[in-house]
Amino acid sequence: MSENNKHIGVFDSGLGGLTVLKALQKQLPDESFIYFGDTGHLPYGNKSKESVVAYSMKILKFLYEKQIKAAVVACNTASAVALQALQSEYSIPILNVIDPSIHSAINYSKSQTIGVIGTETTILSNTYQTKMKNINPNIKVVAQSCPLFVPIIEEGLMNKKFAHDIVQFYLKTFQDTEVDTLILGCTHYPLFKHIIKKNLHKHIKIIDSAKATAQQASECLENNQLLLSTKKNLKNQYYVSDKPHAFNHLAKVLLNLNNIQINHICL
Amino acid sequence: MSENNKHIGVFDSGLGGLTVLKALQKQLPDESFIYFGDTGHLPYGNKSKESVVAYSMKILKFLYEKQIKAAVVACNTASAVALQALQSEYSIPILNVIDPSIHSAINYSKSQTIGVIGTETTILSNTYQTKMKNINPNIKVVAQSCPLFVPIIEEGLMNKKFAHDIVQFYLKTFQDTEVDTLILGCTHYPLFKHIIKKNLHKHIKIIDSAKATAQQASECLENNQLLLSTKKNLKNQYYVSDKPHAFNHLAKVLLNLNNIQINHICL
Repeated sequence: MSENNKHIGVFDSGLGGLTVLKALQKQLPDESFIYFGDTGHLPYGNKSKESVVAYSMKILKFLYEKQIKAAVVACNTASAVALQALQSEYSIPILNVIDPSIHSAINYSKSQTIGVIGTETTILSNTYQTKMKNINPNIKVVAQSCPLFVPIIEEGLMNKKFAHDIVQFYLKTFQDTEVDTLILGCTHYPLFKHIIKKNLHKHIKIIDSAKATAQQASECLENNQLLLSTKKNLKNQYYVSDKPHAFNHLAKVLLNLNNIQINHICL
Repeated sequence: MSENNKHIGVFDSGLGGLTVLKALQKQLPDESFIYFGDTGHLPYGNKSKESVVAYSMKILKFLYEKQIKAAVVACNTASAVALQALQSEYSIPILNVIDPSIHSAINYSKSQTIGVIGTETTILSNTYQTKMKNINPNIKVVAQSCPLFVPIIEEGLMNKKFAHDIVQFYLKTFQDTEVDTLILGCTHYPLFKHIIKKNLHKHIKIIDSAKATAQQASECLENNQLLLSTKKNLKNQYYVSDKPHAFNHLAKVLLNLNNIQINHICL
């Protein structure tokens, strides 16, 4: 198979990464994708750094053997802790969801004070904080982990009163700060955006990584002359390491996909 | 090593099973235990039956090779879906946390209407419902899954107002029923007992499996002549498949253990 005709690999701890896949498909409609959701280890957000690196390496090995020309780590926790290990092992372009959001946020922020919300492992890794400081040492970062967001989203309870109270509980960190830009540092969180918006000052801009990541992926493929050379001829493939009850429901909500074939594989 | 001098294996998806270990240590102070918390796959409650069976088989193999004379499946989800597979593979006594609670509940209930709360996989497995009906076909069972309880407990947010609202949300199932006995069908839930109690009619008796399981384990070892024949000479051992940030905190809260050595092992 010529390099250009290969797939693009996309992986996440579970199904949140489908928000990124959706943006990628919109940006690159002719390309074919292989999605891997590591639902057997879901959630990554409270696992140790070492474990998330080990899971990510296994997944990329699996995707690489399926013939991919590039990979997108569509999970903030894995992007925060495993990217370097993945890039040092494989020579294909490996994109992540953190860098694109950071660039959007830094471009937008006038107060130079940027908020980030994410899982516990993402926030504790200090990746967002370090990367932003490296680009501009004057940037102030206010970070907050929100470990209950993923379970509430996975349970589809986003519209309950207590979900609103939980959002309020975590977001009070940003009261009385100069934050004018908030990065949703987890691919699940766009599904919670309407409630997050309600609990923030109106002037705060919300940055979600899906669209920015898709744009960066498109530029990267072009620069590496890896864009598909012929019309799309491969079907998308979907793999999960466990098939939870909620899978079909979430695939429908996230991607409007009703009849996709999901392959269950234990790595 | 003589059979009597071997350890007792105890496993759970994570740390909730430490509530059972605590009761076992109180009931059998001379025995030594090997605890395995499958924190790498935590939580089991939203994983598929097939995956929970596969994880449980791997853990029991690991414990068996460490020389155990009996095993306690200290996880309701694994007890609900994996017990038969485990018992058909190994000839040592394998106890679970469901049968002891069921016997306590049936003995107590006067209305013959028993409530059960647990994870999604436990409740969907219908194990509690089927087992109780097999003992007494007149028993009515009212079951409710509470998928947000484990994440809230693991985050230590049990005393927040929204935690109270979430308990109220799930327990309204038991309003206007004849339920006079409620089984806590998850080894995490005893840590939530004070709030669960507040949200139930005062006459409802709460059954938690830890004590009943420890009593049954003691009887089982005696009947099989497996009780320790000499004074305790082996130290307890603790293994986890991932070491989350919260581990030491939870071990301290659950077992008052400050300086235990935790071994990290990937199965």
